[in-house]
Amino acid sequence: MEIVSSNKSYGGTQGVYSHASSATGTEMTFAVYVPDHDDRAKLPVLWYLSGLTCTHANVMEKGEYRRAASALGLIIVAPDTSPRGEGVADDDAYDMGQGAGFYVDATEEPWAQHFRMRSYIEQELPELIAKEFPVDMDRQGIFGHSMGGHGALTIALRNPDRFKSVSAFSPIVAPLHCPWGEKALGGYLGSDQARWRQYDACALIEDGARVDEILVDQGTSDNFLEEQLKPHLLTEACEKAAIPLTLNMRKGYDHSYYFISTFMADHLRWHAERLGS
Amino acid sequence: MEIVSSNKSYGGTQGVYSHASSATGTEMTFAVYVPDHDDRAKLPVLWYLSGLTCTHANVMEKGEYRRAASALGLIIVAPDTSPRGEGVADDDAYDMGQGAGFYVDATEEPWAQHFRMRSYIEQELPELIAKEFPVDMDRQGIFGHSMGGHGALTIALRNPDRFKSVSAFSPIVAPLHCPWGEKALGGYLGSDQARWRQYDACALIEDGARVDEILVDQGTSDNFLEEQLKPHLLTEACEKAAIPLTLNMRKGYDHSYYFISTFMADHLRWHAERLGS
Repeated sequence: MEIVSSNKSYGGTQGVYSHASSATGTEMTFAVYVPDHDDRAKLPVLWYLSGLTCTHANVMEKGEYRRAASALGLIIVAPDTSPRGEGVADDDAYDMGQGAGFYVDATEEPWAQHFRMRSYIEQELPELIAKEFPVDMDRQGIFGHSMGGHGALTIALRNPDRFKSVSAFSPIVAPLHCPWGEKALGGYLGSDQARWRQYDACALIEDGARVDEILVDQGTSDNFLEEQLKPHLLTEACEKAAIPLTLNMRKGYDHSYYFISTFMADHLRWHAERLGS
Repeated sequence: MEIVSSNKSYGGTQGVYSHASSATGTEMTFAVYVPDHDDRAKLPVLWYLSGLTCTHANVMEKGEYRRAASALGLIIVAPDTSPRGEGVADDDAYDMGQGAGFYVDATEEPWAQHFRMRSYIEQELPELIAKEFPVDMDRQGIFGHSMGGHGALTIALRNPDRFKSVSAFSPIVAPLHCPWGEKALGGYLGSDQARWRQYDACALIEDGARVDEILVDQGTSDNFLEEQLKPHLLTEACEKAAIPLTLNMRKGYDHSYYFISTFMADHLRWHAERLGS
């Protein structure tokens, strides 16, 4: 692991790191914020998964999480959203290929070789984080935005023993039923929709996956609300499965980091309560 | 004035606007954050001047001022740092020309035609802000970073009746005595250093300019501290002139927005107290 940059902020350290990933077969970059802490302390860790077009840097620069993370003693990890670089398949569209990994292990060409973001986020990066940072891996939470909200919900639902808390900002809750999801899962996984269900929060819940509870914040002026995000599908799935869902519809807010940053501290406090921080 | 973008954030509106400036003879862009407020309220306004290479966008995206501005009821205005565009003189270096206006009215070629940031910030933009936003122009404060800290200090010292409060992050306090200042003021104003003194905070104080008090935050790990920023020169000038200066040396912090954002709320509270907000 190499240190790309390191800056003191709110008493802690905002770092950017890179490493050769065996999961993706590429160099991967990620950001970690570590609050000031006692030498032997192990802090809970909160994973933030970003949305389409983002790298590790968007939430690091615009997410405004450090003040609350510092106050609450939370380590924040922000991975990239896909493999990148020359020799990595790509698509001219913003919603496929580099910057649009959708947190899946692709099975179809030309994606299968490098687009293994599920394995990267679920297996490889946690092992690296556990080794290199002062984290208590028994106290992990996960959240994200849009495509990253989809990632957070599906990863939490598939790994309920690992993540004690899950939340999302304007998540894609049902990729089976929206254009972004149909395009990405069709491209990465092929046309058999049965194979998509492990990557669809609502389908996972219908198929029996459970988490203790879910927090979602969603702007009412989000341009993607009706066609892509469809939070009512998550409400329906959670109601049928008796999963407590707090869905805050935020009047006048859009899909941007101006929205996310407004409610960032609320989400960190929510996770901190559940992570004993 | 045209609206470039408008996003709801922390209950208020973060807008970006453009207009044809008569001062610079170019299209100028600026950002304004207006907190939620009663219909007939007039809010105090705090000007933030940015540093080298920045546009209006850097502090808007990375400065983390909206939470405190919303809570305190402060309007935040963030102008660009120079005229820009084709036909505007420039320099390949990052510290001269576009992105490096130094808040002066240039007298030398090729800069004199467009590089009139003093007139723009002191005269033209305040008139536009007064006309278009719910501001109480009797309650103005000003602050900034690096080159923008220089701008804030010099503008406040030249206009003590207009600005009730002034602060800075890692300001250039004495352009007469640092490479950035010597290059920029020499280029924009010519070699007669007597003409530079109105653009040097320490020289202005030596020449009799006064403000009620000054707040400065400065990182001890700032790469520019010794060669360019030299806060001790401001300390000496303020001591001689009996201007109360609070200079917070912040251990381990650098010159970046990771530093600025950490102490942003402190500065906003300091201004709010002095602006009756």
